[in-house]
Amino acid sequence: MSAEQQRCDAVLWSEAGLQLLDQRLLPGEETYLTFTDAPSVARAITDMVVRGAPAIGITAAYGVALSLARHSGNSDWRARVDTDIACLRQSRPTAVNLMWALDRMQALIESTAESARLAKLAEQEAIAIHERDRRDNERMGALGVEAIRRLSGDGPHVMMTHCNAGALATGGYGTALGVIRSAWREGVLQRVHMDETRPWLQGSRLTAWELLREGIPAVLNADGAAAHIIREQGVSWVVVGADRVAANGDVANKIGTYGLAILARHHGARVMVVAPTSTIDMSLDKGELIPIEERSGDELLLLGERSIGVAGCPVANPVFDVTPAALVDLLVTERGVVEAPDRSRLEQLMAGA
Amino acid sequence: MSAEQQRCDAVLWSEAGLQLLDQRLLPGEETYLTFTDAPSVARAITDMVVRGAPAIGITAAYGVALSLARHSGNSDWRARVDTDIACLRQSRPTAVNLMWALDRMQALIESTAESARLAKLAEQEAIAIHERDRRDNERMGALGVEAIRRLSGDGPHVMMTHCNAGALATGGYGTALGVIRSAWREGVLQRVHMDETRPWLQGSRLTAWELLREGIPAVLNADGAAAHIIREQGVSWVVVGADRVAANGDVANKIGTYGLAILARHHGARVMVVAPTSTIDMSLDKGELIPIEERSGDELLLLGERSIGVAGCPVANPVFDVTPAALVDLLVTERGVVEAPDRSRLEQLMAGA
Repeated sequence: MSAEQQRCDAVLWSEAGLQLLDQRLLPGEETYLTFTDAPSVARAITDMVVRGAPAIGITAAYGVALSLARHSGNSDWRARVDTDIACLRQSRPTAVNLMWALDRMQALIESTAESARLAKLAEQEAIAIHERDRRDNERMGALGVEAIRRLSGDGPHVMMTHCNAGALATGGYGTALGVIRSAWREGVLQRVHMDETRPWLQGSRLTAWELLREGIPAVLNADGAAAHIIREQGVSWVVVGADRVAANGDVANKIGTYGLAILARHHGARVMVVAPTSTIDMSLDKGELIPIEERSGDELLLLGERSIGVAGCPVANPVFDVTPAALVDLLVTERGVVEAPDRSRLEQLMAGA
Repeated sequence: MSAEQQRCDAVLWSEAGLQLLDQRLLPGEETYLTFTDAPSVARAITDMVVRGAPAIGITAAYGVALSLARHSGNSDWRARVDTDIACLRQSRPTAVNLMWALDRMQALIESTAESARLAKLAEQEAIAIHERDRRDNERMGALGVEAIRRLSGDGPHVMMTHCNAGALATGGYGTALGVIRSAWREGVLQRVHMDETRPWLQGSRLTAWELLREGIPAVLNADGAAAHIIREQGVSWVVVGADRVAANGDVANKIGTYGLAILARHHGARVMVVAPTSTIDMSLDKGELIPIEERSGDELLLLGERSIGVAGCPVANPVFDVTPAALVDLLVTERGVVEAPDRSRLEQLMAGA
């Protein structure tokens, strides 16, 4: 991997430890922070140094590898590692990939007799999770474009995306932006409109940064302009990622996705959700059961240190919302595309592992 | 008027000239700028020192009064005043109250034989426009609450508003916020949710400032959170202002209003547009004909001097959108309430002057 490509990676594993691109500083600064213990990794997830459901799953897996490297020589290693895993598990509540990755690491620990090699095996497992995610994204990119062609022809189509479900949110390439990238390469994309995505501005800071450096035609808009742009620009596909998908197909994703899906339906645009099967939580019957993270009101009232509102103003800052399955036209996973997702189709998808 | 009340006024007329509360600095600073000539007033409108359709109409009327005070002694006064009026007319394109107020001032000039008294008469006319707007707002507040009670009972109701259609946007009291104020006083309002309203943050900077200083329960949210909040908080009324209403009832208002109206309809909440009849433009058949102002992309990419996005990123920044009449449940004007506004109902309203 060349140095240039590396600089696009949100998560890097090296001799020195886990390196995370500090996404709070993008696009102004490209700074990697190095982590060598799990509690610091958990804090980095909470503080959004790294964000995006697949990327925080990968990050947590590396966190467990760091925990084992640090503690596996100690007599009480198991208790220490369990504490670290519990700490990672609580770092953010909504994305289920975090739980999925930690469950995989925990299963490895429980099934490994040779504790001497466990640190090495854990490292290999985390790397495998990371590499699988990258491969899965490329697969989803191809499947997504195939579905766009099948359902609406070669276009080129005007699309819209929300938040950042790109290379920065994943092991590389991206889920929603993976489909956008593949669509651009295959001539199916005319232009993509990007919601700026308040309060964290993932659209203007991260998605714009990713797409413009690859020369993909991308135009930024305020979140409130989405309806006007869908109507005036003829947007035919809304393509987004997911943080958790319930067994009935309801989708938790960045706040604003639910509204955007309603706007898409109103205008006859299709909604495509792109997410690996590690995002699907068959243990939850429906979207209402997905825990929705509320973050500090200061995310709206401050920009950096600067006040941009009325100090002490009551704020509602849910950072995810739930889009009912009925508003999702397509769920694209690495195992295949589910049209009009519902419980039986998701069961079928997950059974065909 | 007490000093405390005066400090809530966006537009003040005094011996020294026209004073405008610099709304770009709110809520951090409450600074009045003084204007004594029309071109500077036009620039203040363009630069959004003052904003809100009724407030810029009133401001423009005072601008004409300043022009006459300055030029009426000169032999070429008429040409100079006409130039000033043309300059004011071009200061912003979307709100029609600006054109309405200038037409009134122009009619006064044309119908006045005693040019010696014209400066004084123009001042009186501008003050009359200002005072009429304030009275009309109070009347609309009462009519709006009456309609809420009639259609949905005493509540108290959870409402949502977008942008700032308050005292700051008008001659005082507000259009949409006039209804919110009256609803609060009469016990019909439980709580109002406020969209922050990117890019200019009228919600977090202006609406929050107005409502919180009066102790009206108000909660701020990111624009993208509106759908989630309407569903989870049981919002039953969306109350907004307007910048121009076409003859068929289509409504141009702050970007985001159209999307919010779709979300309201999707959830069974009602949409109330509150605007004086000076906002209704019977010369335009339908909303598509309303000119929509596009402002600089820097409004999204910069916050003050600080970059918050990718420099040079293409941006679409339409600052108004058009909500089709079919999505408007009620249009509240000072002359009465129009349910399900359409051409014939608006013609009837306007004929009943």
